[in-house]
Amino acid sequence: MRADQAFSRAAAALAGEDPPRVWSLLVTAFGDLARTEAARLSGPLLTRLLGRVEIRPEAIRTALHRLRRDGWIDASRRGREGSYALTARGLAESRAASPRIYGPAPAPPETWHLLIAGPGAAEGRAAYEAALRLQGSLALGDTVLMRPGPGPAPEAAAGLLVLAVAPGRAPPWLADRLCPPDLAAAAAGFAQAAARARASFGAADGLPPLDVAALRLLAVHGWRRVALRIPVVPPGFLPATWAGEACRAEVSALLAALPRPDPAVLEQAARAP
Amino acid sequence: MRADQAFSRAAAALAGEDPPRVWSLLVTAFGDLARTEAARLSGPLLTRLLGRVEIRPEAIRTALHRLRRDGWIDASRRGREGSYALTARGLAESRAASPRIYGPAPAPPETWHLLIAGPGAAEGRAAYEAALRLQGSLALGDTVLMRPGPGPAPEAAAGLLVLAVAPGRAPPWLADRLCPPDLAAAAAGFAQAAARARASFGAADGLPPLDVAALRLLAVHGWRRVALRIPVVPPGFLPATWAGEACRAEVSALLAALPRPDPAVLEQAARAP
Repeated sequence: MRADQAFSRAAAALAGEDPPRVWSLLVTAFGDLARTEAARLSGPLLTRLLGRVEIRPEAIRTALHRLRRDGWIDASRRGREGSYALTARGLAESRAASPRIYGPAPAPPETWHLLIAGPGAAEGRAAYEAALRLQGSLALGDTVLMRPGPGPAPEAAAGLLVLAVAPGRAPPWLADRLCPPDLAAAAAGFAQAAARARASFGAADGLPPLDVAALRLLAVHGWRRVALRIPVVPPGFLPATWAGEACRAEVSALLAALPRPDPAVLEQAARAP
Repeated sequence: MRADQAFSRAAAALAGEDPPRVWSLLVTAFGDLARTEAARLSGPLLTRLLGRVEIRPEAIRTALHRLRRDGWIDASRRGREGSYALTARGLAESRAASPRIYGPAPAPPETWHLLIAGPGAAEGRAAYEAALRLQGSLALGDTVLMRPGPGPAPEAAAGLLVLAVAPGRAPPWLADRLCPPDLAAAAAGFAQAAARARASFGAADGLPPLDVAALRLLAVHGWRRVALRIPVVPPGFLPATWAGEACRAEVSALLAALPRPDPAVLEQAARAP
């Protein structure tokens, strides 16, 4: 199989049916390639890289504009060529998400706290609503939520019954709530896509650096949409058919087969005709 | 103070404002005086004993009839005189209640299970309703209940999230739910009544045996109505102002000052003019 055919088949497997949102694809690209404060990606590189996955230059310009307006990236210009870097905030958020995308499955805490508000009780309702908004809170019903770790601050628990728990296994209604059917389907689907993509260039060798970066982009982007939605919950709380970890393994194997190209090499390739 | 005055004051303190239900007073009398299978209380003794607390003979006859019909007592007759004993069922229920009335506060289990049904989920609803009906279940909301001890059988928990908990302190809404205001008021009120009753005959001595039995009857009856409603829950689950244990202590002191008379002595006294 020719390298070009291998790329097309792998890209088709990873791209899925819906066209990606370009600004989101750019967030993935910066997350994969611009991982330090000094790292910049040039306009020509972004155009060539995203062009390889069928994104038109105007769409890229619009998305870059949006990301600048949102404070995610900064732009600078030397002569006719623009270049882009993550802002401090963009870098911080990118780094915060990175372990969940590139790392192993995070180990959930062993102990949790259950916070229970009185049924229909105005007392404690505000504390309950506040606790519900905290990251990591799992609503188990209209008056019950579970929070990881050492529990909320006492003031946050005023009026609530607080119980330390070591959760075991969740019933199906809770597992389905934590991993809704569309997430379960996305995980299973992308696990297959990653496996198909790896198979398609497994025989080929010497993919050009821009093709490697483009396939990584599609792989990380598709996986990121699953990975960032995976709840960090006790092991027995996910559905029995949950394919999220299989998907993580397939994506890891795929990324290992597509080592991240040196950005300088990519910049050079982007300027070749 | 004369013994008769002491009795009147003590009886007035213990009787409270509402007239007692006679059949319920008889249940208390059998529970206090007829504690074995062989123990019988004669018609004349019941008439004199309850007469001492202002219950008329016709009301006693009606209540005895009701208790026989309900299978709580058996009647037998020798000549013109009837006598009554607890049935096997009456004795069993009386003995089951006895520790909660005469004993120390029962120690609640340290570990509990929490059973959580899905919000609006038909699945597990039947298991939840069944668990709710089991003795000792505390409803903490529309979908949450707490059960003492090692938890329900697995089949009872199908479709429910089951969590082992070691409860600490309950918020006010839950404490008020477990000890509703009328129960809290009754406990506080009867603690005072028992203290006043003991003070009124503390100086006097040599109360007649029927008076001792009648005061015990009022004391046990008033306390029984509180004691059997006290929930067996973690120590921190009762309201901060809960006077139930103070009431238990006052009643214990009162009963210690009024030792249970020998039933044979009471039968003899009931026949005296």
